[in-house]
Amino acid sequence: MKIVRIKSDDDIVYGVADAEGVLVYQGSPFVAWEPTEIVVPWPKVSLLSPVIPTKVMAVGKNYEDHAAEMQGEVPEEPLVFMKPATSVIGSNANVVHPRISEEVHHEAELAVVISKPARHVKAEDASQYIFGYTAANDVTARDLQRKDSQWARAKGFDTFCPLGPAIETELDPLERLAVIGRVNGEVRQAGFTADMVFGVAEVLEYITAFTTLLPGDVILMGTPSGVGKVEPGDLMEVEVDGIGVLTNRVVAAS
Amino acid sequence: MKIVRIKSDDDIVYGVADAEGVLVYQGSPFVAWEPTEIVVPWPKVSLLSPVIPTKVMAVGKNYEDHAAEMQGEVPEEPLVFMKPATSVIGSNANVVHPRISEEVHHEAELAVVISKPARHVKAEDASQYIFGYTAANDVTARDLQRKDSQWARAKGFDTFCPLGPAIETELDPLERLAVIGRVNGEVRQAGFTADMVFGVAEVLEYITAFTTLLPGDVILMGTPSGVGKVEPGDLMEVEVDGIGVLTNRVVAAS
Repeated sequence: MKIVRIKSDDDIVYGVADAEGVLVYQGSPFVAWEPTEIVVPWPKVSLLSPVIPTKVMAVGKNYEDHAAEMQGEVPEEPLVFMKPATSVIGSNANVVHPRISEEVHHEAELAVVISKPARHVKAEDASQYIFGYTAANDVTARDLQRKDSQWARAKGFDTFCPLGPAIETELDPLERLAVIGRVNGEVRQAGFTADMVFGVAEVLEYITAFTTLLPGDVILMGTPSGVGKVEPGDLMEVEVDGIGVLTNRVVAAS
Repeated sequence: MKIVRIKSDDDIVYGVADAEGVLVYQGSPFVAWEPTEIVVPWPKVSLLSPVIPTKVMAVGKNYEDHAAEMQGEVPEEPLVFMKPATSVIGSNANVVHPRISEEVHHEAELAVVISKPARHVKAEDASQYIFGYTAANDVTARDLQRKDSQWARAKGFDTFCPLGPAIETELDPLERLAVIGRVNGEVRQAGFTADMVFGVAEVLEYITAFTTLLPGDVILMGTPSGVGKVEPGDLMEVEVDGIGVLTNRVVAAS
């Protein structure tokens, strides 16, 4: 099932997407919801980020080829950092290129969406806490990341966390799912979830050993190699097998 | 004015503290509120964290003497990191000493509470965005901080961000306000806000240059020297002139 959040007239609603459009639901899939009889056809759908997390956790250097291109090694434990919830946007929204960076990079990633409060979760129980998966773009001001010891700024600008287009609730990241990053239609990144150094279950165990994840919280699972610069005007796409395409244009700061 | 959040019977309410107790208000000071006629006397007051932030930003190495004790130098720009909102607790709540750390430290700090959405704020306009100030303890697993390149884990454990006891709305951190950290009654840290490397206004300009701060969001302003280890059973106190005493006991993980 593909769950989306959309703007419908003046309301913001959750719904389930199929070929024709979005079947609108009442309520929230994280609490309780039920279908209405309203279907919004695709030409009228305005997508929002499929979830508003209370926090976004992310894993760095989680593909060997990307760690190598960053002149780094794969860490012995997951390298966890945070992005502020205010950085989240949906598909088709613009990513604002900050004036104070000369080097903004795309990073195509698989993202995990949490279903219920999760603390001290064992890897073997991880699936009980996973609501589904979406695609993410861990947009990064690479020059500021090199300059700052902590990444709160380089990874934390408003609009630097596109999520979407939908949450797919039936997906197995242990399969060889492709994670593709394109800029202006050209493939720049192509990796497979099976090549992640730390899998979803291990990362969930690691993160919930220190913090409580809440329903709707998101974990970005790291990016394969091929990251690179984007400029205002560029169209970024992140495609994950079974989820769809997350599309965001880069615009200059006003 | 000293604003507190308290548990009153089964309700959670905001109120204003004075010598006798807490005058209960309806609503939230961040939106709209008005006084009731109910006063809860101090013996019956159960304090909560005075605010639930959507995010907690924090500044590292912001006192020269603390940067020196960490074998580091004062950074050229504010060193900003994040703590998850799930780490926030109030005064009198317990800080849980994680099993996976051998070296948990107290860090006494002044904290800024934001009043309204803040982005691209100029230092000279900072006061318009500040709701008030509270005390904070930036509890840190020092061994994990040394081990991990990013501090999300070392600074992010549940209960690692005590805030309180109240938000004081009339306070000027440009004055020489004492920031005191005590463990079991013994003074371990004693600094003055006037000695912060980057002041509140500069930090607000720096942080809002990349992210939008929302009403109730919190900035921890860094700690003076004297940080040190605490063990289960220890009583930590953070006192800031004009705000009061934030008290938290360390307990072993169950």
